[in-house]
Amino acid sequence: MSDPRESGGIDGQAMRRLLDGRWGAIRDRAREVLRGPDFAPVYGLGVEEHRSRVTDQLHALARTEIPTYGFSSAHGGADDIGASVVAFEMLVCDMSLMVKVGVQWGLFGGAIQALGTEAHHAEYLPKVMSVEVPGCFAMTETGHGSDVQRLRTTATYDPDTDEFVVHTPDEAARKDYIGNAARDGRVAVVFAQLITDGQEHGVHALVVPVRDAAGEAMPGVRIEDCGTKAGLNGVDNGRFWFDRVRVPRTSLLNRYGNVDSDGVYSSPVENPNRRFFTMLGTLIRGRISVAGGAGTAAKAALAIAVRYGEARRQFDRPGGDGEVRLLDYLAHQRRLLPALATSYALHFAQEELVSALHDGAQGPALSDHDQRELESRAAGLKAVSTWHATHTIQTCREACGGAGYLAENRIPQLKADSDVFTTFEGDNTVLLQLVGKSLLTNYRDEFGSLDTLGMARFAAGQFFETVIERTAARSLIERLVSAAPGRGEEADLLDRGWQCKLLEDREAHVLEGLAKRLRRSSAPGVDAFDVFNDAQDHVLLAGRAHVDRIVLEAFVAGIERAEDEGVRTVLNQLCDLYALSVIEADRAWFLEHERLTPARAKAVTATVNDLCKRLRPHARDLVDAFGLNDEWLAAPIALGAEDARQEEQRCAGAPVAAG
Amino acid sequence: MSDPRESGGIDGQAMRRLLDGRWGAIRDRAREVLRGPDFAPVYGLGVEEHRSRVTDQLHALARTEIPTYGFSSAHGGADDIGASVVAFEMLVCDMSLMVKVGVQWGLFGGAIQALGTEAHHAEYLPKVMSVEVPGCFAMTETGHGSDVQRLRTTATYDPDTDEFVVHTPDEAARKDYIGNAARDGRVAVVFAQLITDGQEHGVHALVVPVRDAAGEAMPGVRIEDCGTKAGLNGVDNGRFWFDRVRVPRTSLLNRYGNVDSDGVYSSPVENPNRRFFTMLGTLIRGRISVAGGAGTAAKAALAIAVRYGEARRQFDRPGGDGEVRLLDYLAHQRRLLPALATSYALHFAQEELVSALHDGAQGPALSDHDQRELESRAAGLKAVSTWHATHTIQTCREACGGAGYLAENRIPQLKADSDVFTTFEGDNTVLLQLVGKSLLTNYRDEFGSLDTLGMARFAAGQFFETVIERTAARSLIERLVSAAPGRGEEADLLDRGWQCKLLEDREAHVLEGLAKRLRRSSAPGVDAFDVFNDAQDHVLLAGRAHVDRIVLEAFVAGIERAEDEGVRTVLNQLCDLYALSVIEADRAWFLEHERLTPARAKAVTATVNDLCKRLRPHARDLVDAFGLNDEWLAAPIALGAEDARQEEQRCAGAPVAAG
Repeated sequence: MSDPRESGGIDGQAMRRLLDGRWGAIRDRAREVLRGPDFAPVYGLGVEEHRSRVTDQLHALARTEIPTYGFSSAHGGADDIGASVVAFEMLVCDMSLMVKVGVQWGLFGGAIQALGTEAHHAEYLPKVMSVEVPGCFAMTETGHGSDVQRLRTTATYDPDTDEFVVHTPDEAARKDYIGNAARDGRVAVVFAQLITDGQEHGVHALVVPVRDAAGEAMPGVRIEDCGTKAGLNGVDNGRFWFDRVRVPRTSLLNRYGNVDSDGVYSSPVENPNRRFFTMLGTLIRGRISVAGGAGTAAKAALAIAVRYGEARRQFDRPGGDGEVRLLDYLAHQRRLLPALATSYALHFAQEELVSALHDGAQGPALSDHDQRELESRAAGLKAVSTWHATHTIQTCREACGGAGYLAENRIPQLKADSDVFTTFEGDNTVLLQLVGKSLLTNYRDEFGSLDTLGMARFAAGQFFETVIERTAARSLIERLVSAAPGRGEEADLLDRGWQCKLLEDREAHVLEGLAKRLRRSSAPGVDAFDVFNDAQDHVLLAGRAHVDRIVLEAFVAGIERAEDEGVRTVLNQLCDLYALSVIEADRAWFLEHERLTPARAKAVTATVNDLCKRLRPHARDLVDAFGLNDEWLAAPIALGAEDARQEEQRCAGAPVAAG
Repeated sequence: MSDPRESGGIDGQAMRRLLDGRWGAIRDRAREVLRGPDFAPVYGLGVEEHRSRVTDQLHALARTEIPTYGFSSAHGGADDIGASVVAFEMLVCDMSLMVKVGVQWGLFGGAIQALGTEAHHAEYLPKVMSVEVPGCFAMTETGHGSDVQRLRTTATYDPDTDEFVVHTPDEAARKDYIGNAARDGRVAVVFAQLITDGQEHGVHALVVPVRDAAGEAMPGVRIEDCGTKAGLNGVDNGRFWFDRVRVPRTSLLNRYGNVDSDGVYSSPVENPNRRFFTMLGTLIRGRISVAGGAGTAAKAALAIAVRYGEARRQFDRPGGDGEVRLLDYLAHQRRLLPALATSYALHFAQEELVSALHDGAQGPALSDHDQRELESRAAGLKAVSTWHATHTIQTCREACGGAGYLAENRIPQLKADSDVFTTFEGDNTVLLQLVGKSLLTNYRDEFGSLDTLGMARFAAGQFFETVIERTAARSLIERLVSAAPGRGEEADLLDRGWQCKLLEDREAHVLEGLAKRLRRSSAPGVDAFDVFNDAQDHVLLAGRAHVDRIVLEAFVAGIERAEDEGVRTVLNQLCDLYALSVIEADRAWFLEHERLTPARAKAVTATVNDLCKRLRPHARDLVDAFGLNDEWLAAPIALGAEDARQEEQRCAGAPVAAG
């Protein structure tokens, strides 16, 4: 254990080990595998060239153990869901490869694993891992993306031939944006309305061959290329239309809904709505993976921008001490360091979430409540992480000026590729709304209609324990919060308990206000849509407040795991910066609700500035601890080019006459 | 004059005429010229193919009168600076063309016009307009972008040959990101430190041939391609190194600094610092043009997203009234409509600024104060407009979901192209800081060190008249503000005078606080850099508060010009939305400084929601009034594809068994 060093560096190895966390070995393996010219970032490739390179990379990965992580050991998998998510998140050398891997082993393979039964597993999983069968996850349609329940593709059972007839009734029902569809996919998991004997059973998934061995579209299947996209052009997104395509009855992934040879439908989940959400719930790994992938993209951009901001100088320092490093400007620190703190916070939250997913998959089935909590956390973290990535990468682009606009400096590709993360695997606005609704459900479960009993329990202070459910470091947070000064008392802004309490308080108050508001408006004659729609910003705020709070708790839990005192000291400052940045960003709310006085609100801003100054010397160490290979960053401005120029300029001195 | 229509449409023609404004004929001309397959947006081109297409487009424009707008009539120009800026802003069909035009006729031609003298004008201007001489504006170096005064390229007078020797002393001094350099440029205006007889005279510009008639680099000139960029790949950005390149003495653009045949330097502006800023000041047209171009990119994205949000439906309306249009969701309105209101506000502010530039160029030389005001406004509006564009286009991308990520839907290109606008022609952070500093200068001019006399004038209420200088609709705003209730009194949130007053008050208070803070800290022994750096966020806020206020005033002035009562009514709502969005976004400040009570701050949010709802029916009309040709929008989702699918789906009805 090293000593805390006030001004010196931190123990980079210790910090990195902490960040690497439970699946550190998987991260190291990725760092080892994703090396050399085959995996180095490239830019400026044509669409077909890029697709072909990414497909080759996928096949190269198929020759390692990486694809096995997410699959069951009964079929050659490693039964390590957590590893599969962490490995995905490391694929930042080319985010097209990240998404291609996600399509093949996450979405396509994952759907067969989660929704299929033994026969499907035996038939497909080995070929999924080896990419002998490249596959697609054909859920989204042109007309329906977020509203999966309203998909229009049909799968109608034909008892005469014991087959399903898969059909695209109209243009809105064409499958759209499907990864692996335009070029490589042989088989697709197709989501369709299941119909037997004229009766609808809701959305189910079937395995449908889309191309033959020669790569030609199967009869009745029309395939179109989605063409050039803003980014991720190494992924061959495409569209499918099915013209009464017949597949055997056994093509139905029948874990949650089966049709027997008499055409009789049965399901272990009686209620169709519940069945639908159970099926969707098995697919949350994709969402969690996307949150992680976005996180890595943000880290890579920060690594580039911080290294450049450390080297780059502009404008003389008054007093003649040479030119000032960009990162010495408060405005530059303000742009990059709170974002860096947030990346750390989200990293720890992601680790908690991956662990919860992993452990949940190992043990007995989760309770409804626990499953809802997991899904809600996945949705919330996906929304917050991907927006963080979009915002941070943009900030990094601007922080690098014109150099950040050049493809050679990597940021443009990170930005263009990760942009779609905010709307795929669930639109962020829809997801945050889902979090808000889930919190309302918890709230109602506990307090009902806030009748006398509910009010009594509320008054008895059970509110926090039931609505504010802690997901990490429960007893520690409890202790910190209990020790924090009460409302009205002056707490140190750096008191962790006070910070946690403030975010808990906001979450509880927003949720309570929302519940009251929705109830108040649910009078007869009031339009249900209008009521909920008028409160939509309130619902989104509830979701956001929840995520902010659990992310802070995860950060606190992460610091607890730090053994090195110096690491712990810097992480505590970083956690302060995260917490106070969140509070600062929404300080209007805290002022409006009299949780902060004007003087204290101003002090929050001053303290954020102060923390930026204190963390600035550690910025480089903090981005290095992400452990991203230099060859993934690739940007010359992050790898010494600017330093070299500075040095040459220093030697050249002031302009002198040439001639 | 049409009647105000409460729920009906607005008079689109009247709205468009108002927006088209003083240079409406120029806008119509651009709408007419930029048609057909040669100018239609394309995507997915290779870099070379794209460059070649844009060069062809430039030559096509050279055959119209468009290039003449910005040049003096003595040499075949039209003496219409305003027209040149407005024409630039219309080139949204391909923003690479916009930038290519800006390089050739704005930066390159503009520098010759502004910094050169009669002989240069006669020799070059006709060939600049006809593109017989494609040119470059070689200011930025790898080592120095924002800090132009520290450029390192040298131009040393050699009396023996009566030539200048242009030289790149080190890698930091190479010219970088130079448009037209990698492929087309024949001549460059090169900014260099001028040296005669061992004495430095600061940065001056010289005309330097960079390629011969065959397109080969001139002897001593090394040219490199900047390669692929995030966007604007139709512009051939490149780098120059000069190895003791000799040019005749007359190559110096000598309006502000001349070297005679004896090698004696002279300048009409004695003070070198003042000379430098005078020279830079003549180049503000580029900054103003960029603000306008960014504005158009944001408008185009809004037009696409609003049209799609109007057609696209997702999730059933509870009560079974079919699926809900995206634009009927509060969250969707919240994303798009305040941005739309801001686009209107910035449009009017841009028009005021272009008029000020134009009129300033026509009349006698501006006073120092007026020139500073113009430069400061250009800097501020450039920063705010380009950040608005980046933010808005990102929002529109997300609002269009996966469809917004497809190149065919135009938004990806708008986003990638306009991204660099936030950091070129002046980094936004540097520019906003410049605004803040300029305000401080005004403040000091008026109040000096806030001695007794200054305090007396301050107390006498002259503060607003002198520091808060109105740039538009002076007497109207004066009247509105005077009629508004005073501090502490309850004003209607929709009272325009109150809104103006609130923004004025913030600007004045921030500036006053800043001045006090900087003065307080200027004690002996205090590090000047630290003092200013610690206040950097305060300086940026001062700049931002200033821009917010003048933009609101420009909106008010714009509404005054509306003759149609219906147009005026909707514009007033839109102006309310703009003003209250600005107040809402910074309501923490107003709460901290007790300009808003918590209850009123909450009411601001509720009123923004209400205004969104009221403006929602007009959204389509409001984006149509921008008058952007459908073929510039190009996006299928904005041009009926979604409507057609909806209609087909409606006819197809619910899923039915196929087979």
